[in-house]
Amino acid sequence: MFKKIVLISNNYSKVISDTLHTVIEVLESRNIEVFLDIKCYEFAPGTHHKTIDTQEFVDQDYDLAIAIGGDGTILQAAHIVANHDIPLLGINRGRLGFLADIPADTVEPMLSKILEGEYTEDIRFQLHCELHREDKTITEDSAFNEVIIQKGNIGKLIEFETYVGGNYVHSQRADGMIVATPTGSTAYSLAGGGPIIHPKLNALLLVPICPHTLSNRPIVIDGNSKVELIMKESKIEHGNLTCDGEMICDLLEGDRILIYKKDKKIRLIHPLNYDHYSVLRAKLAWG
Amino acid sequence: MFKKIVLISNNYSKVISDTLHTVIEVLESRNIEVFLDIKCYEFAPGTHHKTIDTQEFVDQDYDLAIAIGGDGTILQAAHIVANHDIPLLGINRGRLGFLADIPADTVEPMLSKILEGEYTEDIRFQLHCELHREDKTITEDSAFNEVIIQKGNIGKLIEFETYVGGNYVHSQRADGMIVATPTGSTAYSLAGGGPIIHPKLNALLLVPICPHTLSNRPIVIDGNSKVELIMKESKIEHGNLTCDGEMICDLLEGDRILIYKKDKKIRLIHPLNYDHYSVLRAKLAWG
Amino acid sequence: MFKKIVLISNNYSKVISDTLHTVIEVLESRNIEVFLDIKCYEFAPGTHHKTIDTQEFVDQDYDLAIAIGGDGTILQAAHIVANHDIPLLGINRGRLGFLADIPADTVEPMLSKILEGEYTEDIRFQLHCELHREDKTITEDSAFNEVIIQKGNIGKLIEFETYVGGNYVHSQRADGMIVATPTGSTAYSLAGGGPIIHPKLNALLLVPICPHTLSNRPIVIDGNSKVELIMKESKIEHGNLTCDGEMICDLLEGDRILIYKKDKKIRLIHPLNYDHYSVLRAKLAWG
Amino acid sequence: MFKKIVLISNNYSKVISDTLHTVIEVLESRNIEVFLDIKCYEFAPGTHHKTIDTQEFVDQDYDLAIAIGGDGTILQAAHIVANHDIPLLGINRGRLGFLADIPADTVEPMLSKILEGEYTEDIRFQLHCELHREDKTITEDSAFNEVIIQKGNIGKLIEFETYVGGNYVHSQRADGMIVATPTGSTAYSLAGGGPIIHPKLNALLLVPICPHTLSNRPIVIDGNSKVELIMKESKIEHGNLTCDGEMICDLLEGDRILIYKKDKKIRLIHPLNYDHYSVLRAKLAWG
Repeated sequence: MFKKIVLISNNYSKVISDTLHTVIEVLESRNIEVFLDIKCYEFAPGTHHKTIDTQEFVDQDYDLAIAIGGDGTILQAAHIVANHDIPLLGINRGRLGFLADIPADTVEPMLSKILEGEYTEDIRFQLHCELHREDKTITEDSAFNEVIIQKGNIGKLIEFETYVGGNYVHSQRADGMIVATPTGSTAYSLAGGGPIIHPKLNALLLVPICPHTLSNRPIVIDGNSKVELIMKESKIEHGNLTCDGEMICDLLEGDRILIYKKDKKIRLIHPLNYDHYSVLRAKLAWG
Repeated sequence: MFKKIVLISNNYSKVISDTLHTVIEVLESRNIEVFLDIKCYEFAPGTHHKTIDTQEFVDQDYDLAIAIGGDGTILQAAHIVANHDIPLLGINRGRLGFLADIPADTVEPMLSKILEGEYTEDIRFQLHCELHREDKTITEDSAFNEVIIQKGNIGKLIEFETYVGGNYVHSQRADGMIVATPTGSTAYSLAGGGPIIHPKLNALLLVPICPHTLSNRPIVIDGNSKVELIMKESKIEHGNLTCDGEMICDLLEGDRILIYKKDKKIRLIHPLNYDHYSVLRAKLAWG
Repeated sequence: MFKKIVLISNNYSKVISDTLHTVIEVLESRNIEVFLDIKCYEFAPGTHHKTIDTQEFVDQDYDLAIAIGGDGTILQAAHIVANHDIPLLGINRGRLGFLADIPADTVEPMLSKILEGEYTEDIRFQLHCELHREDKTITEDSAFNEVIIQKGNIGKLIEFETYVGGNYVHSQRADGMIVATPTGSTAYSLAGGGPIIHPKLNALLLVPICPHTLSNRPIVIDGNSKVELIMKESKIEHGNLTCDGEMICDLLEGDRILIYKKDKKIRLIHPLNYDHYSVLRAKLAWG
Repeated sequence: MFKKIVLISNNYSKVISDTLHTVIEVLESRNIEVFLDIKCYEFAPGTHHKTIDTQEFVDQDYDLAIAIGGDGTILQAAHIVANHDIPLLGINRGRLGFLADIPADTVEPMLSKILEGEYTEDIRFQLHCELHREDKTITEDSAFNEVIIQKGNIGKLIEFETYVGGNYVHSQRADGMIVATPTGSTAYSLAGGGPIIHPKLNALLLVPICPHTLSNRPIVIDGNSKVELIMKESKIEHGNLTCDGEMICDLLEGDRILIYKKDKKIRLIHPLNYDHYSVLRAKLAWG
């Protein structure tokens, strides 16, 4: 079933190194072909497996990608597999994450079961984001959690207009605007005051950051909508665009940021007993 | 097209009476058969049209219901047509409502256009709510905006469990829980801290009212989900159940409230230039 | 120093009974005269100490009141000593409370130190609340946490006007209004969206509950201000008044609720190492 | 009474120029000695009054400063008079501001009355802010509204510790932290979720911006408290410090920002009928 597996990681820690070794052992014992990204190779010296440069991720028909780390690592892995059709499994360095739902201390039994076919696939969508300036497309990128326009390195609000499906929604002044997927609704968007959206819902979430007008509340729209944000300010370093927390570009007056659902999906692999609400309860300390 | 039209109203005001007369004149001039509910009959004395008791709304194959008043009146009219397949048009006593989107001062031209076929139909769903106690279904009702369980006439929190699609979500202590439709997201739910949901989105909204645990945030789920709330408290007068603001029943410990999308839809009629975001901008004083 | 001590409790549990015995032993070993309220007497059978009816708390020149339970018990004890000048010590049945800051498992050493004079006194103010109807004062009461006017057993908002120091603040429609002390800012007010106020600050906190107008935000005013709330609605069972969660009275249209700082203070006793921020961190799971 | 008056403005508009001429006429007709800052001089060409450079505002024993513009202009004027003991009057270019409370269209009668002594003085405090790095004081500044530490030109949260009066409050990860005066509570702090604080209350307001931990709520503390924020992150361009929206400095790991009430006060001049709650009602669209 899973014959060629690529391992992805980024931040070193003792736990991650240990977990990585466990994962490699489990895979080796099943004669699975293992590929390591550069970081994994550094964190697991002595292994003889092939190293790949995930920045130039040539599709080798990997059957599975396993990311080892926190939600940030899995997010980064999602970007690596974003345009390929490879399922992604997240192993958490600690207890439990929203995306990395296999705790480090249960890797062996849980990974074994998954390799034996006992898993569910959880299809999540990601966003495509294009920045149009005058008649050119300046840059484009993907986001699994959220696209954000926000004020830059000066203390002033940004001003922008929002359109959904070509319809004018509003002009506002705020620290920024988050356009999130359901997956992203439990990430930064939650700190910005957004609701929790079930990952299966086909919806986009618009959350203004510290809006000047107090009635500018989060808005949930159809997942197939095209969102357009137009910058109304001109000052240098005034605004910028980020995808999943990575700075993409500075923004200028008149810039149009187009955001919509990407065709390519992220295929998350979960153990059979995966329960989204159970993760929410644990992460948000409910009850 | 619209040959038999029923008029619905509730609270008297001079504007409503005047608007009602204008509506009747427009309908009479087009030889449309007009039916008045009891209140309309009181507010427009001297008309010779048939009076009907909307409480026992026998389906006369009405082609259209016109409600005259504020959003509360249209909400009440929605309950009257809830189980019938009659389109509903709302004429506001004042400027503009979320549901009553024809301002009183433009009734004549706008109503005329609608009667000539220039309108759009906006299909909204409503909720069905059942209260189960032990093995019996105690009561059931419909809601267009929201179903609420909330603390009653004593100053204590209620405690309840929430299940979605049979999956346990959480136990919480709060003043109550709102289960709202997208239509209801701009009503009481907004005051409770919920997001704005586009009326076309197939989603349900769960908004806890003043939850004890600060991380108990609003949750947006698939519109086809079955929501179940289970009361964990036993004191008399402790909790109650409302549908669209109308008290349905007191709640006892162990009561199970089942809430899901109703088959029958509400068919709102809008003028052709209807723009949901424009209504939001006006009602929420954006920009 | 503390020669006559009264013990107060309310809800029975094994932990409370055990803790009560420990407290009594510590006091007996120091030849302190012990008085038990009815509940304590029930929870500690076999003791020979005098029983008092705290509902008719005749000032016996008690030197200290010790409440054993959760924050609710200490709140109730605060009402008992509200008009007397008796310091109040709270022993928590569990780990730590905002008011009951001696954990059950450290009673012996910590109580001993306090009895030896190693403590700080934390002066908190409470509220006086008067309900005026036409020309009469219908009722009056005290609150240590908060006075609330709120909707009653029907699903409708209440409408009321707020005045501070005789100055009109606003009219609003809401589920209710909380007028809280700094002590109460970490109780129900926090669930209503209010800020945390340091207990030493001479301030009152006005928190609207689910206000219809989204810009009706919590307001913090001078602690010496007189707050007046005037009910604008007339329906039966529409609104009611509570002090510290206890229902005081139904409210009628025109009722005026006057709220201001009470002369008599609550003197909380803390161990020397008491740290308000440490309690906040523990209770709110910060960091 | 007011014999030497300095006029301050910044952004040009037709209304401001007109208002400026009206103000000058009123002052000239009363033989008051008028001084113009550079901007006012530009906006009112043809006047023969002395021009001063407000950046090097040498105390000329001015009896009054009049700022003409929006709240931003008055804020800037407050910085100019911050260390001098000169009363400040704000004339709004439009209708009404929190600080500029004389509407442009009533300048003549209202200014005349004020010059005749019919006014109230409203003493507001401002903040002093010091940035300590290792053993040096890198910079210091004043703020009338708020001091903010916030994330800079990268998309990551900042991490910092908060101390009040030397007591550890919490560590948190957030977009930033606002330390506001009561005056500032209706400015940016309100967009960040803070409460409204009456300007007469001796209090400071701590409002976390989009905190990662949902229970990190606004905190109101005694106005005489010393607040210390300590940066826990080391990345370049990661955080910065602003006073009243002006960028003061980039922040490095270990930086300590000390914030406390400044000795020098701001003396706002209001017409006799000034009513703070009336301004709130107008600005926040209450009722």
